[in-house]
Amino acid sequence: MRKEITGFSNPLVKRIRSLRDKKHRRREGLFLAEGLRILTEAREAGFLPDMLFRAAGRDAHALEIALEGEVLAAGGDVIETSADILGKLSGKENPQTILGVYKEFSTTLETLDRKSADIWLVAQAMRDPGNLGTMLRTGDAVGAGGLILIDDCTDPFSVEAVRASMGAIFTQKIVQCRWDEFITWLRIGPGQLVGTSLQTEVDYQAPDYQRPCFILTGNEAQGLPETYEAECDLLVKMPMRGKADSLNAAVATSVMAYEVLNQFRLR
Amino acid sequence: MRKEITGFSNPLVKRIRSLRDKKHRRREGLFLAEGLRILTEAREAGFLPDMLFRAAGRDAHALEIALEGEVLAAGGDVIETSADILGKLSGKENPQTILGVYKEFSTTLETLDRKSADIWLVAQAMRDPGNLGTMLRTGDAVGAGGLILIDDCTDPFSVEAVRASMGAIFTQKIVQCRWDEFITWLRIGPGQLVGTSLQTEVDYQAPDYQRPCFILTGNEAQGLPETYEAECDLLVKMPMRGKADSLNAAVATSVMAYEVLNQFRLR
Repeated sequence: MRKEITGFSNPLVKRIRSLRDKKHRRREGLFLAEGLRILTEAREAGFLPDMLFRAAGRDAHALEIALEGEVLAAGGDVIETSADILGKLSGKENPQTILGVYKEFSTTLETLDRKSADIWLVAQAMRDPGNLGTMLRTGDAVGAGGLILIDDCTDPFSVEAVRASMGAIFTQKIVQCRWDEFITWLRIGPGQLVGTSLQTEVDYQAPDYQRPCFILTGNEAQGLPETYEAECDLLVKMPMRGKADSLNAAVATSVMAYEVLNQFRLR
Repeated sequence: MRKEITGFSNPLVKRIRSLRDKKHRRREGLFLAEGLRILTEAREAGFLPDMLFRAAGRDAHALEIALEGEVLAAGGDVIETSADILGKLSGKENPQTILGVYKEFSTTLETLDRKSADIWLVAQAMRDPGNLGTMLRTGDAVGAGGLILIDDCTDPFSVEAVRASMGAIFTQKIVQCRWDEFITWLRIGPGQLVGTSLQTEVDYQAPDYQRPCFILTGNEAQGLPETYEAECDLLVKMPMRGKADSLNAAVATSVMAYEVLNQFRLR
């Protein structure tokens, strides 16, 4: 139904604001996504927010009006509030004028259809929410099926990761699992596991990649553990012409993903 | 000389901490870089800090000892302090154990030797310091000569941009200028200007790129202004197989830069 919040002391403000902490997200099973662009991606992917907060006193975009109608029809709440309160909810100085509260979701390896896509991204101990969100965004762009998170990765449902994903949090499958679970699952079906690594001389353009291709990227500071590299079908590296020896983790994943896509779209 | 700071109330703490603000950086002509890895990159590129802050009570790495010796020999200060004060200086919860204060530098178009590299990156109205730093890091990796910042870009000397650059702030030339200055300079010599855009059907792998190649990326939200696109020699786009229509700006630049490098390393 339609509601209105005018004061910072409203208990719902505190509750929604608390969703910026992982602990509260897990307890409530809810997360935040901001901005009409991301909320529209969500809607097109079949996700409606339980609660939709909108800034009062302005004309709504046609897409926003449609979204509000669907939220109300599905039994959700559309809550009009002030720009200041929206800023407090999202923690941004220049908040978006619309914010959705969504149910968390997840996929298990058992229900993942590996043949539904030619490319899958796999991140190990990814620490930076911006990198994780950017990997989701690139995954969407290359037509990947999803992102498999190995070991202790940053939470994909954080405000920062959702923001960096630009909506791909809703279109990419997300699995969180341990390495041994992943490898056991991987080896019972088709799938080439390709790790980006500094411990190889194989240029990333040299191999013929195989469908479905699982592109594995390690932790930002440490890279992949040696024992994980040993289980890869291929280790490859990008040429490095400068003083440094590595790329940003999301960039490395993206450069690899486009190489694999470029090969696949030729055959 | 060697100094020691034991209290948060030391005026130098306030002064260095103020360098996290652009206004103070401009006034002092100084900026901060953290961590032995980045400070070592700086040293190898010929940059020594005016002041080097180090956490007391631990054994120094051999590279750090060498760095300290050079700073002292060059008349700089090596300042021992606590981990808490280092954290206050850098604004991080888990601060690096070493922090350098460097003189700001810049390059003008007039002194830029465009033939010194095959690839140059150009960013227009880039707003996110992480994106800007990541572009510098990728520039270093592909052997680019530097990054040309057009219009109102985020400050390359912010703590966040320097951190994301992983030291490439010291190895890449950085020019800040207006669009008309850039175009005038570009057209008096060789150089192919390639814009990444959604307003084209030219696949980014189709053209034969020419040396030196200037890769132009627009603002994160708006992309390039139409009038800027009109002055490009080429507009290209990456294939987009998903629901969304764009990549993160630093990712798009990096995927483009590797395509250009891949073409150049074959001929």
